[in-house]
Amino acid sequence: MRVAVVGVGQTKFDEHWEKSLRDLSTEAGAIALRDSGIDGKDIQSLYIGNMSAGRFIGQEHLAALAVDQAGLIPIPATRCEAACASSALAFREAYFSILSGEYDIVMAAGAEKMTDLKGTDAIATLMGAGDQEWESAIGLTFAGLYALIARDHMQKYGTTREQMAMVSVNNHRNGVLNPLAQFPAEITVEKVLKSPLISDPLRLLDCSPITDGAAAVILVSEKIAKRFENPIWILGSGQASDTLALHHRKSMTELVATKVAAKKAYEQAGLKPKNIDLAEVHDCFSINEIIAIEDLGFCDKGKGGKFVEDGKIARDGEKPINPTGGLKSIGHPVGATGVRQIADVVKQLRGEYGNLQVKDARFGLALNIGGSGATSVVNIFGRDKPK
Amino acid sequence: MRVAVVGVGQTKFDEHWEKSLRDLSTEAGAIALRDSGIDGKDIQSLYIGNMSAGRFIGQEHLAALAVDQAGLIPIPATRCEAACASSALAFREAYFSILSGEYDIVMAAGAEKMTDLKGTDAIATLMGAGDQEWESAIGLTFAGLYALIARDHMQKYGTTREQMAMVSVNNHRNGVLNPLAQFPAEITVEKVLKSPLISDPLRLLDCSPITDGAAAVILVSEKIAKRFENPIWILGSGQASDTLALHHRKSMTELVATKVAAKKAYEQAGLKPKNIDLAEVHDCFSINEIIAIEDLGFCDKGKGGKFVEDGKIARDGEKPINPTGGLKSIGHPVGATGVRQIADVVKQLRGEYGNLQVKDARFGLALNIGGSGATSVVNIFGRDKPK
Repeated sequence: MRVAVVGVGQTKFDEHWEKSLRDLSTEAGAIALRDSGIDGKDIQSLYIGNMSAGRFIGQEHLAALAVDQAGLIPIPATRCEAACASSALAFREAYFSILSGEYDIVMAAGAEKMTDLKGTDAIATLMGAGDQEWESAIGLTFAGLYALIARDHMQKYGTTREQMAMVSVNNHRNGVLNPLAQFPAEITVEKVLKSPLISDPLRLLDCSPITDGAAAVILVSEKIAKRFENPIWILGSGQASDTLALHHRKSMTELVATKVAAKKAYEQAGLKPKNIDLAEVHDCFSINEIIAIEDLGFCDKGKGGKFVEDGKIARDGEKPINPTGGLKSIGHPVGATGVRQIADVVKQLRGEYGNLQVKDARFGLALNIGGSGATSVVNIFGRDKPK
Repeated sequence: MRVAVVGVGQTKFDEHWEKSLRDLSTEAGAIALRDSGIDGKDIQSLYIGNMSAGRFIGQEHLAALAVDQAGLIPIPATRCEAACASSALAFREAYFSILSGEYDIVMAAGAEKMTDLKGTDAIATLMGAGDQEWESAIGLTFAGLYALIARDHMQKYGTTREQMAMVSVNNHRNGVLNPLAQFPAEITVEKVLKSPLISDPLRLLDCSPITDGAAAVILVSEKIAKRFENPIWILGSGQASDTLALHHRKSMTELVATKVAAKKAYEQAGLKPKNIDLAEVHDCFSINEIIAIEDLGFCDKGKGGKFVEDGKIARDGEKPINPTGGLKSIGHPVGATGVRQIADVVKQLRGEYGNLQVKDARFGLALNIGGSGATSVVNIFGRDKPK
């Protein structure tokens, strides 16, 4: 039994002062339905990823609300949460629910409304993704956690400030062509290095922004997929966990959960890192893209900075990474990012991404990370099965 | 392919000032492992239900934390949330993940630490289960919502204050024998009617308490279940949604989501309401047990009060309801309740519940409700298949 994605949708990622979380969820879902040609009444179950609507807007029980708002009652509605990896989990559960034989047509979505809180409160809310007793309670922020990771990577492997800046430069160069991106503006290495210091060595332009937005995809069983011209198949899916607190790990310069999840996904797909034509990875902070490149096996450990510097991650490079803009340029509504990445991979594999298209893309990968790597989810997609 | 439950565990439900959420989760999981004889290292994935740790204790990303604390890294860890129905959802996703062929041995848990917030803040946090824009924002509480439901049921069907009180009396009569119950004390109808008015017509002793606690169960595939002496099989599982805001529904005296979920579960199980030997239902407020009895088909709509008054719900009655104490006496750590109910049904079907045992229990049902009924989950279990 195989499962395919046959519809994708995304709201503009932005500061949406005029729209509430329920509006954004419905909008993304409606776009995905229209994209697929499937009628809302044929959706049998909804999974939605959301990190912290309870704190951002005082609303838990979001999945039922989304189904209610979309007029899809009484279908089952399930929220999944693993911080910034929430919607990759929602996607995986949707996938399992079809594999189980329970459903044939399922929507997986992700949504977050972050700008209703003032910035410092949003930062505190995001620390819910870390270890409350060991990290949040002493005042650490996520920029702080990733700054520790960045400093260690610089010391251990000689990764440079410039190389990290080049991650942001690459992603903004792509995002400038993405009409749904929050910050579609070109930047330079110099601009990154002169942007305000957030948590040494990370600067403002190393950090993904606070964003409102939603994304949705529609998954169908093999039987249903036959009706569609261009289904994109799920070839492999892996999820893994690591310690929530950073200091409990043996190393800060690799995310073991990513390695475990990637190994599983590659094995299921029958593919190797060299077969991947493009990857959407979790650049919540620039250093995390460098580490992702290494942990996904695109280069050896410690060589990620050089990989970036050599231009290999460009959309027309050897291994296009975040060809549509990444979290940095598109924005990072935390619970929505995982499904947004998947939607972008699917659009690339369909070959319909216009200015943002990666040439001859056959196999694509999405890596969504929760917190400082306590959750990692890798999904691999293809136009067809590997030979 | 069938799936069985082969291990159950529950912490004492209580005000646990000396234990944090991570301690409670680990304790429940360890008890379930010991109960099953399965080694922790054989668990392939964890699903955990939790409603609002983000607001209760500033901790999202709970599933990874639970896996971390239990020493089970790097297995996948997924939190599910649908307010008070969170852990029934975690259970269902665990079930699907085995049916999908991905895993053979999975833990489903639920946990909530509610007493770290002061009472009024906890009440506000619980309103995250309702509709923020339509209900919470105008100051409604859950006691208020269920008071509206109760008043409507009284007017439409002649349900009496005394009948509602008898629900609490029955559940406390059972709970007094439950060593894990938060309030193992007998009460009387008179005591309920003289308890402080919370939201007219509901009084303190109509309301389930604020509680800390966790519960866990272990699910296995048919292949693995053969190793066990007394596996309890999942015969049917249904989940459905309704409007989040109460006023958007056509009727306040029935929960349509329960009816839809129950229909599905009965059909899958090949059973009818009359075949159910015992049910754990969601008595967050006394009126909700009366409505559950009706919506599950144990009696006609409007006759639930009379059903209770006639003593049919007693542990040795015609249809034992909440034979181990219900939310009212055992306590209601919201995210833990769904799995606690399932654990109790499993213990009954194994025939090993001592003083609390329902005689000759062959088929049992668990009904877990989120909010004022926007999510409803019904699971049916059996010692064997129906003939």
